[in-house]
Amino acid sequence: MSLIVQKYGGSSVATLQKMQFVAEKIKKYFEQGHQLVVVVSAMGKTTDELLHKAFTLHPSPPERELDMLLSTGEQVSIALLAIALDALGIPSLSLTGGQAGIITTDLHTKAKIIHIDVHRILEGLEQNKVVIVAGFQGKNLQDDITTLGRGGSDTTACALAYALKADFCEIFTDVNGVFTADPRIVPQAKKIDRISYDEMSEMANLGAKVMQLRAVDFAHAYRVKVHVRCTFDDQEGTWIEEVGNMENAQVRAVTHSGDVIKVVLQGVPNRPGIAAQIFEALANLSVSIDMIIQSEGRETVKDVAFVVLKEDESKVKKAIEELRGKINFQNIILDYEKSRISIVGAGIASNPQIAYRMFKILAENNVNIDMISTSNLRISCLIPREKMEESVRALHREFIEEEKIEVETNE
Amino acid sequence: MSLIVQKYGGSSVATLQKMQFVAEKIKKYFEQGHQLVVVVSAMGKTTDELLHKAFTLHPSPPERELDMLLSTGEQVSIALLAIALDALGIPSLSLTGGQAGIITTDLHTKAKIIHIDVHRILEGLEQNKVVIVAGFQGKNLQDDITTLGRGGSDTTACALAYALKADFCEIFTDVNGVFTADPRIVPQAKKIDRISYDEMSEMANLGAKVMQLRAVDFAHAYRVKVHVRCTFDDQEGTWIEEVGNMENAQVRAVTHSGDVIKVVLQGVPNRPGIAAQIFEALANLSVSIDMIIQSEGRETVKDVAFVVLKEDESKVKKAIEELRGKINFQNIILDYEKSRISIVGAGIASNPQIAYRMFKILAENNVNIDMISTSNLRISCLIPREKMEESVRALHREFIEEEKIEVETNE
Repeated sequence: MSLIVQKYGGSSVATLQKMQFVAEKIKKYFEQGHQLVVVVSAMGKTTDELLHKAFTLHPSPPERELDMLLSTGEQVSIALLAIALDALGIPSLSLTGGQAGIITTDLHTKAKIIHIDVHRILEGLEQNKVVIVAGFQGKNLQDDITTLGRGGSDTTACALAYALKADFCEIFTDVNGVFTADPRIVPQAKKIDRISYDEMSEMANLGAKVMQLRAVDFAHAYRVKVHVRCTFDDQEGTWIEEVGNMENAQVRAVTHSGDVIKVVLQGVPNRPGIAAQIFEALANLSVSIDMIIQSEGRETVKDVAFVVLKEDESKVKKAIEELRGKINFQNIILDYEKSRISIVGAGIASNPQIAYRMFKILAENNVNIDMISTSNLRISCLIPREKMEESVRALHREFIEEEKIEVETNE
Repeated sequence: MSLIVQKYGGSSVATLQKMQFVAEKIKKYFEQGHQLVVVVSAMGKTTDELLHKAFTLHPSPPERELDMLLSTGEQVSIALLAIALDALGIPSLSLTGGQAGIITTDLHTKAKIIHIDVHRILEGLEQNKVVIVAGFQGKNLQDDITTLGRGGSDTTACALAYALKADFCEIFTDVNGVFTADPRIVPQAKKIDRISYDEMSEMANLGAKVMQLRAVDFAHAYRVKVHVRCTFDDQEGTWIEEVGNMENAQVRAVTHSGDVIKVVLQGVPNRPGIAAQIFEALANLSVSIDMIIQSEGRETVKDVAFVVLKEDESKVKKAIEELRGKINFQNIILDYEKSRISIVGAGIASNPQIAYRMFKILAENNVNIDMISTSNLRISCLIPREKMEESVRALHREFIEEEKIEVETNE
């Protein structure tokens, strides 16, 4: 008998049939005697369709109204899921974010949760109901509807799990957990059974789509035990939790992202404060940046290169336009032909052997490394797009498959 | 400079293009210096589509969840209208029913308004914003979303006009007001410039779709001046207001409805209380009934006939099934081949000449009258469906076109 917070993403409730499948799944948990709080996202492409309508009417719609509009997507989901559960004879109570007591800041489209008043949820649980909460949304102190931005439903689920002191939080998605590499590229990729918050955070940051970075960091901060698993089968997925320090640094996964752009500002004036100016303009538009390199080439000017996500392309162009008025750089190059591959694992950057092996493998495969960045949890290299898939496979072989064999041999 | 409450129905905002047209229209009013509170319905067929989803999952979905589901339709409309207005540079504030302070009873899917706390609307108006309110919805004292049932958006508009002491309430629809008959059947039909609440109520009751009965009765009770007009042109429509007693009874309009079913219960036991039992079963299912006739034929049994709306067909069948267990009637006939035609106008039933002329005209046209019912405001006859159109034309000629000519001759 646990108190479990479950989150079903948009692809898990994309059709009425899938909605019914989710209801059947919830029924099984309910009949085992668990108390359930279920967070749902908008069905399938609903959010995109609503956004398309808004942007047809307005090049930059008021953010308060975007929240008013988008929040209807999750509201439809909670009502339909409650209806589907009732059809199975399972009592439930649907609640919008506001009704569930999720109070946020005023910052529309990317509000932060400041308080959760769980009394209506507890009331529903006491009445032996499945409580269904609309993900991604809350309300501010003025009773206006707010949304939490990207990954909002994952964050709702983790926040409720914390506020309700739930036993754990299950994130249901369309893959069966976190893998050592993308199985579409590396057939040998294996599911990771347990991963630390830090490692998961780094993987989410590097583009693993299984769970949103912000929610991972929230779960970490509040020590919420998370189980990422597949809606459509009953296998165990990946547990994200506090993992004791490994004695040895170990590569846990190889990740890649082709959805990046390398930006080079050539001939930027070589004076103090110039980098701050550039990255302030990008930060103001919430563009996240990776792999910054400054050349020390000529005396009066230098080059600045960095990597951004393709989804931020229009923001990046806007920031550069603004910079043009302030800084006299000579040229700008946007390179769309690069990919970022990374190895992830606690402590790997402190083990020089691992970096060396990564670069050696890439060299043996004739891959030219364009940029490198490291943290304590990962080493990333920017490489030509056409080398991405074979490089991922080679690194997976080196760090995951072969290490596996060693362990078995030693037993 | 007036304070005006406007209501735009689902057909007025059915597409993004129409939404933009409505925004342009609001802009004109706003720039003339009026204070505006705009009530909108769900876009086009949205409500039907949502209902279809609910009934796909459940033969009779829980009503609280239907309200949670359906209320999203109007919420999408208010957000998109606010976005369209912003694109035109007009400041606005969208509010759900609950945010607008519309507090209702708990009766989901047909809640009644018990209180309106207008402070957020007034705040918006004071900030010189167009205030946009989601029609058809409110919230109960437990913060649950409720809906007002059929004609809910008209009721929202009239209730807000009353609560805000607005100068008047404009109901925008796809026809240009109330007509003396359906122009598709009677090309000579004319727009009525002014009509009393009582006459409008009777016409709504008889199937004129221009404004919902419940909203007319609300407007009457609270003396809200209503202007029914067309979204897509600028002509004056029909004013519904207190009209001083006419010296002479006058037929204002000829209405018809083919969407009726004649129900005959044959061989019902002839004992006291039997009619009460029958109509209690129908009332419990909210079936409205017209034209009740009891035969006094045989000694121990009698026939009971009445007319119901086709939209209530399934409820009627359910009520009859329930009755079968309690009353031994011999046979039941559902007759789908009848239509109801009516003449409407204050005081006409008290003028025997008018009834006589109506029956004479129908006789001259070889129309067999099956049932008759009257009130102080109307005389209705049930006639064969195939005679409906020519009968409407003949009555319109007799009571509206010819009376018009007389008046002109006398001047």
